[in-house]
Amino acid sequence: MKTNPGRFFEDFRLGETIRHATPRTVTTGDVALYTALYGPRFTVQSSDAFAKTIGYPASPLDDLLTFHVVFGKTVPDVSLNALANLGYAEGGFHRPVYPGETLSTVSEVIGLKESSNRQTGVVYVRSTGSDASGRTVLSYCRWVLVRKRDPEAKIAEEHVPQLAKVVNPADLAHALPPLDPAAYDNALAGSPHRFADYAVGEKIDHVDGMTVEEAEHQIATRLFQNTAKVHFDAVATKETKFGKRLIYGGHVISLARALSFNGLANAFAIGGINAGRHVAPLFAGDTVYAWSEVLETAELPGRSDIGALRLRTVATKNQACGAYPDKQGEGYDPSVILDLDYWAFIPR
Amino acid sequence: MKTNPGRFFEDFRLGETIRHATPRTVTTGDVALYTALYGPRFTVQSSDAFAKTIGYPASPLDDLLTFHVVFGKTVPDVSLNALANLGYAEGGFHRPVYPGETLSTVSEVIGLKESSNRQTGVVYVRSTGSDASGRTVLSYCRWVLVRKRDPEAKIAEEHVPQLAKVVNPADLAHALPPLDPAAYDNALAGSPHRFADYAVGEKIDHVDGMTVEEAEHQIATRLFQNTAKVHFDAVATKETKFGKRLIYGGHVISLARALSFNGLANAFAIGGINAGRHVAPLFAGDTVYAWSEVLETAELPGRSDIGALRLRTVATKNQACGAYPDKQGEGYDPSVILDLDYWAFIPR
Amino acid sequence: MKTNPGRFFEDFRLGETIRHATPRTVTTGDVALYTALYGPRFTVQSSDAFAKTIGYPASPLDDLLTFHVVFGKTVPDVSLNALANLGYAEGGFHRPVYPGETLSTVSEVIGLKESSNRQTGVVYVRSTGSDASGRTVLSYCRWVLVRKRDPEAKIAEEHVPQLAKVVNPADLAHALPPLDPAAYDNALAGSPHRFADYAVGEKIDHVDGMTVEEAEHQIATRLFQNTAKVHFDAVATKETKFGKRLIYGGHVISLARALSFNGLANAFAIGGINAGRHVAPLFAGDTVYAWSEVLETAELPGRSDIGALRLRTVATKNQACGAYPDKQGEGYDPSVILDLDYWAFIPR
Repeated sequence: MKTNPGRFFEDFRLGETIRHATPRTVTTGDVALYTALYGPRFTVQSSDAFAKTIGYPASPLDDLLTFHVVFGKTVPDVSLNALANLGYAEGGFHRPVYPGETLSTVSEVIGLKESSNRQTGVVYVRSTGSDASGRTVLSYCRWVLVRKRDPEAKIAEEHVPQLAKVVNPADLAHALPPLDPAAYDNALAGSPHRFADYAVGEKIDHVDGMTVEEAEHQIATRLFQNTAKVHFDAVATKETKFGKRLIYGGHVISLARALSFNGLANAFAIGGINAGRHVAPLFAGDTVYAWSEVLETAELPGRSDIGALRLRTVATKNQACGAYPDKQGEGYDPSVILDLDYWAFIPR
Repeated sequence: MKTNPGRFFEDFRLGETIRHATPRTVTTGDVALYTALYGPRFTVQSSDAFAKTIGYPASPLDDLLTFHVVFGKTVPDVSLNALANLGYAEGGFHRPVYPGETLSTVSEVIGLKESSNRQTGVVYVRSTGSDASGRTVLSYCRWVLVRKRDPEAKIAEEHVPQLAKVVNPADLAHALPPLDPAAYDNALAGSPHRFADYAVGEKIDHVDGMTVEEAEHQIATRLFQNTAKVHFDAVATKETKFGKRLIYGGHVISLARALSFNGLANAFAIGGINAGRHVAPLFAGDTVYAWSEVLETAELPGRSDIGALRLRTVATKNQACGAYPDKQGEGYDPSVILDLDYWAFIPR
Repeated sequence: MKTNPGRFFEDFRLGETIRHATPRTVTTGDVALYTALYGPRFTVQSSDAFAKTIGYPASPLDDLLTFHVVFGKTVPDVSLNALANLGYAEGGFHRPVYPGETLSTVSEVIGLKESSNRQTGVVYVRSTGSDASGRTVLSYCRWVLVRKRDPEAKIAEEHVPQLAKVVNPADLAHALPPLDPAAYDNALAGSPHRFADYAVGEKIDHVDGMTVEEAEHQIATRLFQNTAKVHFDAVATKETKFGKRLIYGGHVISLARALSFNGLANAFAIGGINAGRHVAPLFAGDTVYAWSEVLETAELPGRSDIGALRLRTVATKNQACGAYPDKQGEGYDPSVILDLDYWAFIPR
């Protein structure tokens, strides 16, 4: 059998390490496409000149472009037979990535838990993206519900990992070079609001909406070399419960983050991902909106240049966010599609 | 309020200077996307080798890519609450832009005129795009009809600027290095027709048509970091008079210019924009055609290598241009969507 | 007449050489778009670091990106008035192409055969793509059915060329530098299967499907500066027998090749194209699948590092390939759209 059927739940072994295929050299071509697909306007990532002025050697990639490239490689090995992407935790961006660097990904199986009906199980992996020198650029945990090939198959060893509810931003600030906040030009950056201007509990409606087309999410998902069939095959997905192509959850994260510029323009770098949940699916033709809440603010030891905001960004579909659609009873307002808890760094 | 609600008419002050956010480093990634979105074939912009042969250090960006990047930055400050983009004048491309350069934009408010119903007003700005060294690469005036927040608001000072009907191409030829017309290979450039072959009054039907998809104009408009909501939000635009997303007017300009290669292949550089008007809106699914008329031809002092053609390019939708659809009575043939008057440089 | 009406059958002369317009510098921007449009995952083309490890100076372009850029230039001169693209033969990729190189194309008319009804004729061309130093990177023959302007027009000289049924892979292996097979990491490349693992007669279903959107094929076809009207103009194509835009045949070739990674991950370079036929048209909304058969395996004189697989890749629309849909009686299974016979190089 020369083709990859993907792993089923019983094919994973606790503690096993999977080296994923297709390392990828990221380029200014990827950066242009990322801009064209999501419309981010964070100035550090947009302007080499601006980035240099404040202390970077050049514009780094948008952190989520790095995330998608690292993530995409895991799909053929981890989630080809997944029924659902259940969550993220312990995400950390450890180094800025620049055009010309090559990213590769390794995953460790850190948890396995068979479902009670024995048809499926939850696989927990810690995926680590590295550059060509082997330096970690990104590490995160995710867990997915994966089909079993054979419901009767026995699982060698099960384990549910304890994952941190919140990562410590002080452990991630090293990803940013020392910055010169005085050289950081608010007008060019798009907002006068810096670290001290954000307060815990503050909610921000990001106002703008973005309608997604089939061509857009397919172009994006292929750019990331993510091969999940459900995003690309209109014939096969006719037989699924949705009856149509499903948009890659990461597409929603990037749209929400790009929309969040309107209100968080200076929070230009993502530090860590505390938690993330794809609450409901997105389909072509839907329009994405987002709002954010400031969950925490954190000063960082030894860093007088930047602070960290713990943000919860909620994305919705076909519903503007002026009323901050949120959790509702046991679940969520029906418009909510994403609930993401992350740290962003912002100049002081 | 951390989000940008956009300025309303009464928020502008005559003579005020607005430094726009998000400088942008343009790259070969942007060039590839521009080619993919519009299909230009002007050889100087397509081939580094060809560009070097005739006197450029490398292929410069398509002038309209520069235009869109410079223009996009003005949208959040100037036209977020605009009802219509009324016109352009005094446009000049002052320097070629090469991949790797960073563009930023400043606008000066040069005119304000409240509408008689006091609900809106016309804002005139002169926008200037510069590179990271502060050298002007593009300057143009545009005027837009902007909503008032409060119809009762008083306007401090009104003024309607006198703008030149035609810019002088001799003032703009410095944007082209001295070229070697003998090294300019007509076969590689796609046409034997040079400056002397075009006559005032000549009309050229550009023949080909290009149908526009939602994904295409959205990808383009985000590439330019243009944030006007009407281009992206299918839910919000349901409530507008068109009931759907509207295509960025600059998308039409770029399509018409790319189509004009078929008949104007050697007119590879835009010098200045004399006047431009978006006569009617374009929507996804429509097909764009174009024709051009030679309005003037101009020799350029001290330049035996190039001449200038003053061209009027008319774009239509869903109507081929064999019959040169044009002005009609007080208005235009219903197929016309763009009327653009500009100078192009062409080898002699 | 300043616009290009395209050549009609009687405008071609046997032995004539046509230098095509618009040389093109290919960049990492083109590479990113190619990845985004087709989703290839061949590691040599994806990772500079991997390519260097095995003996390349950097990642070369996907061979089909080179093919499309070289091919696109021939359209305005050869096939603007073509009714059908009938076939390919004697294709050879002679040098790897790297970002920054400039490609141009010349075609020689090697055959002309008027149809018996005198309305059309078949034009055979050998097209050669070269870099800026004039070194051949790609050469191939294709033949197209072209309309006559005047059915009465006489044809000076007719000739039907004898073209090789199969090219010799030993003549093309020089396009690959000496590789270090020990340094070639199967895990990173995505498959343990090398030259010796493939057997003549083996069939591989590539499993995955890819639905094509109008925006995608238009973006791709413009990227290649291919100007065939049928791909872009929804108004004009309403009057054609299909009543809608037709997808560029090369788009299907690239999709099939990218899908073939699943089963042929290490067959990373195309050597030669023996034969190719677009069996049926593809339209937006259709989903492409593919399967391949190993027709021959060839050791290469002086090359202990690589071998060649002669592959026949069949693409279908809206029909998965588990049953290997193929020729049927005089024709093909109605799902088949492409039948391509080519050599691929693969590490030993």
